[in-house]
Amino acid sequence: MTKAEYQKIESYMLNQMLDGAHDEHHIYRVLYVALDIASYEEKVDRDVLIASCLLHDIGREKQFLDENVCHAQAGGEMAYDFVRTLGWDEAKALHVKECVSTHRFRSSSPPQSIEAKIIFDSDKLDVAGSVGIARSLIYQGQVGTRLYHVDTKGYIITEKNADTDSNSFFEEYNFKLKNIYNTFFTERAKEIAMKREKNAIDFYNGLYEEVAENYEKGVKYLNNLK
Amino acid sequence: MTKAEYQKIESYMLNQMLDGAHDEHHIYRVLYVALDIASYEEKVDRDVLIASCLLHDIGREKQFLDENVCHAQAGGEMAYDFVRTLGWDEAKALHVKECVSTHRFRSSSPPQSIEAKIIFDSDKLDVAGSVGIARSLIYQGQVGTRLYHVDTKGYIITEKNADTDSNSFFEEYNFKLKNIYNTFFTERAKEIAMKREKNAIDFYNGLYEEVAENYEKGVKYLNNLK
Repeated sequence: MTKAEYQKIESYMLNQMLDGAHDEHHIYRVLYVALDIASYEEKVDRDVLIASCLLHDIGREKQFLDENVCHAQAGGEMAYDFVRTLGWDEAKALHVKECVSTHRFRSSSPPQSIEAKIIFDSDKLDVAGSVGIARSLIYQGQVGTRLYHVDTKGYIITEKNADTDSNSFFEEYNFKLKNIYNTFFTERAKEIAMKREKNAIDFYNGLYEEVAENYEKGVKYLNNLK
Repeated sequence: MTKAEYQKIESYMLNQMLDGAHDEHHIYRVLYVALDIASYEEKVDRDVLIASCLLHDIGREKQFLDENVCHAQAGGEMAYDFVRTLGWDEAKALHVKECVSTHRFRSSSPPQSIEAKIIFDSDKLDVAGSVGIARSLIYQGQVGTRLYHVDTKGYIITEKNADTDSNSFFEEYNFKLKNIYNTFFTERAKEIAMKREKNAIDFYNGLYEEVAENYEKGVKYLNNLK
């Protein structure tokens, strides 16, 4: 890939990014960690890898406007069309389409090619560790959910309650964030994830301790008021 | 303080809280940690302490509507008026007013009474440790600022640039969050802060390492494109 071609794809991507939670820094982190993982694998098509990383979330706007749209599938089609305009041949454009359309965590179509697996792993690494914690908290701020909820006795709820739509950082961590560490395809991603997992666990435990200890004491004290 | 009186003050407070960043969980954390600190001090007026903790941020809405208003001062006056309606005598109501109006970090009028010092410390403890990190990130999400900015070479900026209005979590951490650990009045607060400081430093360092390492490699790789 030439620098000029990279800049064309980057510029197209930047024009599509309107959703702050998946802002362009997320795209660069995915791209950069994908290049790291690729350096541990044989025979990676770096043109396909770089283009697919840059374009993997361009379908988000369509999903935002219509929640029935899957951003990965929509993005795959947009990416295909776009790289064709750059003169990429059909096989290469279809490869980009596969990478973009299979990057989604909850997808029923898992990634097949090594490039698609690297992108899947790289996107998931951005949910791991301190970065995953930070993104989750920023997202909670954007959509207005809480750090935690408390039960009727005033104690902190850490697990999602199946009966409610309730959502908080504590519940999201236990429902999603802590369970992503066994979902990686490549050895290098597993290695990076393991290092990051400790950061996430330490933060969660520290936060829980800071908050819960005071709640425990405070609620008890106030319950003793006559 | 009776349970009925507590509930009256709590209910008044909840009706004033419209600002999510300083949501009611912040109020309870401040109250609960204040009761913890109070248990290490002699002669604390717990009625004044509890009422002032509950009411310390009720002036936020006024500050939100008019940025020239100081929420601590406005809240102090509101709190005075409110506890007078509960039948509290003037001396006690003035004491509450002092506690609320001197709780602000950047205030030119520092807290004088032990109750006011405890509230100041308790409010600051909510900026310390993992809780402080989490609140800062949620706030960034609410106001739409970034986790970090990058410089023209593509590397992460960690320190505020005096020439710009730029703000990010990395800059905010280095400008404010990391510098609050020497601002406490009470010994118990200093002790809690010291424990929490490690959580904050570990998170920041972990986050920086996760992000910066990939940026370093990725930017270098892409700069080598012809």
